[in-house]
Amino acid sequence: MRDNQINDALIAGLRQGSRRALARVITLVERSRADAEAAVRALYAHTGRAHVIGITGSPGSGKSTLVNELAKAFRARQDAHGRPFQVGIVAVDPSSPFTGGALLGDRVRMRDLAGDAGIFIRSMATRGQLGGLAEATAAVVKVLDAADFDIILIETVGAGQAEVDIAGTAHTVLVIEAPGMGDEIQTIKAGILEIADILVVNKADRPSKSSTVKALQMMLHLNPTGTRAGYEIRHHGQLMTVPGHDNGSPPGDHPRWETALCETVATEGVGITALVDHIQHHRAYLQESGEWRVREQERSRQELNHLLQARFMAHLAAVVPESQRQELIAAVAARHIDPYAAVAQLYARMGV
Amino acid sequence: MRDNQINDALIAGLRQGSRRALARVITLVERSRADAEAAVRALYAHTGRAHVIGITGSPGSGKSTLVNELAKAFRARQDAHGRPFQVGIVAVDPSSPFTGGALLGDRVRMRDLAGDAGIFIRSMATRGQLGGLAEATAAVVKVLDAADFDIILIETVGAGQAEVDIAGTAHTVLVIEAPGMGDEIQTIKAGILEIADILVVNKADRPSKSSTVKALQMMLHLNPTGTRAGYEIRHHGQLMTVPGHDNGSPPGDHPRWETALCETVATEGVGITALVDHIQHHRAYLQESGEWRVREQERSRQELNHLLQARFMAHLAAVVPESQRQELIAAVAARHIDPYAAVAQLYARMGV
Repeated sequence: MRDNQINDALIAGLRQGSRRALARVITLVERSRADAEAAVRALYAHTGRAHVIGITGSPGSGKSTLVNELAKAFRARQDAHGRPFQVGIVAVDPSSPFTGGALLGDRVRMRDLAGDAGIFIRSMATRGQLGGLAEATAAVVKVLDAADFDIILIETVGAGQAEVDIAGTAHTVLVIEAPGMGDEIQTIKAGILEIADILVVNKADRPSKSSTVKALQMMLHLNPTGTRAGYEIRHHGQLMTVPGHDNGSPPGDHPRWETALCETVATEGVGITALVDHIQHHRAYLQESGEWRVREQERSRQELNHLLQARFMAHLAAVVPESQRQELIAAVAARHIDPYAAVAQLYARMGV
Repeated sequence: MRDNQINDALIAGLRQGSRRALARVITLVERSRADAEAAVRALYAHTGRAHVIGITGSPGSGKSTLVNELAKAFRARQDAHGRPFQVGIVAVDPSSPFTGGALLGDRVRMRDLAGDAGIFIRSMATRGQLGGLAEATAAVVKVLDAADFDIILIETVGAGQAEVDIAGTAHTVLVIEAPGMGDEIQTIKAGILEIADILVVNKADRPSKSSTVKALQMMLHLNPTGTRAGYEIRHHGQLMTVPGHDNGSPPGDHPRWETALCETVATEGVGITALVDHIQHHRAYLQESGEWRVREQERSRQELNHLLQARFMAHLAAVVPESQRQELIAAVAARHIDPYAAVAQLYARMGV
């Protein structure tokens, strides 16, 4: 557990506002699980204050530009002590095995947001480990939180389950759409709409905007409480009802959050102020309704599961040498032993 | 382990070709892990013969229609003994928490393929468990394999990591694109192109087809060995090079498979014969080069990891009551204990 490079000086520097210490800690956290663990253990008691905002949506929706505009808009607002918000951006690309794309995104961003020490940007691609990226992202968010960032924007590239999972750990989830994606929009919606606290139609200066907005409004209308009621989708030209489920009600009898629908033109800065207002309203709603606490617990539950599995796999690697695991895998592939029997053997070897 | 409903009569019926026994076994496998385990253990020795084909791609690419056409085309071909191929279709939707969509897909399919006992169709949506869907899909594929299906088509809806993971377990992976998805196509490519053995441009009667085909050819040209060399993407209007990696070389000095590019109009049945030819060439390539065995081993490795983690989580649930896990989660959410310390406590309780 001690083969990490996180030390007291780094942690103290980070807590005192050193951007250099922050960058170093994040690099270490991305690089190894031991460092991620050491950093989180040292910093965890100082976390819990930041407003974590997940931003997801289809490729081509203009997410990155919107995130940049959000960062600038939050920088122009102040906390209760009259200090401008500090904004962290974590751009996550689970679908890419390359860090190339991530670095690229960084460079485009840097040009736009460079020179503002109150904005910190980090791009992350896959670690190449099962669940590794989600774990690393969670750790980086905690590090930024403990470094007194008020607003943390997690942008996920793509719209698959991994992206939804990562964005879903945020307090506030924005789903971004662009007009004119035609029939396909309906398909994408099915999986992703229900995690949205705020729906954003970006590129709202396009002529095809109104049909997209109408389609989304119809879905929200079918779902007037804003949370996970049934709604309809168009599939092969037929309108079908998707059954609802209900796991989003706030504790007590506080009214539910109604999913907001915002229109923006991020490239022109249009609609950003209203969007930031909505995000801040959502934060107030979460805190007043008690749902902030509910979401923190859900996040903690998911995190414990991830960490438990990671620890288990590390334990396995320590107890059963790679060569023996390879032999067993070859036996399974050759149908000499079934996979459940192989798992039972491995499990027994671990002394469980 | 014995609270399952798989019995010898069901297994015998399935092996003798009873579609009723097959449907029953699959329903049980989907419903519970105990049944999935019992079915796989009983049938595993009879698996390994089927050609498993993964089909993925963006929403709107016409995947479902193409899969239907492939199924019909394979039915018209014969195995070495002159018997028409039997075809299983497994449609998986990891992005949807709803079974509604899955059932819907079934109904559309049924209309098209009904009445052919040599085609068996099953749609699957999320089980609501971590990794549950991948495990259930793997089990259903084995059941179809043991029921003497020659061709198993796994269709995944969406194009995220979960879909790529599921399709990636197949022997042959088809990635489907439609023309006219504009700049976005480049973004989607980055994550998904590299798992393709065969790239299919469907809806190839659209006027915008040639630019899509050209873009894909450029990527394949930049990647002439067909496997995971670097290629370029257009990002924010700039052409950038994505670095390559190399994990796909066949054993020995057999030449590599060159990713094939096929054009189809699935709604008209155009290009299907050539596509099926390519799929059968790929199977021959896999077997002659030894890569079939390599892919089987990779699949077995992933499967063992999934099953190990599932077993571990089940063990945890048995040893630490839900109420105690809830308490610990609340303590983590309140920052009274850090998540790594909480994991250490749980791990110790499991006697590991």
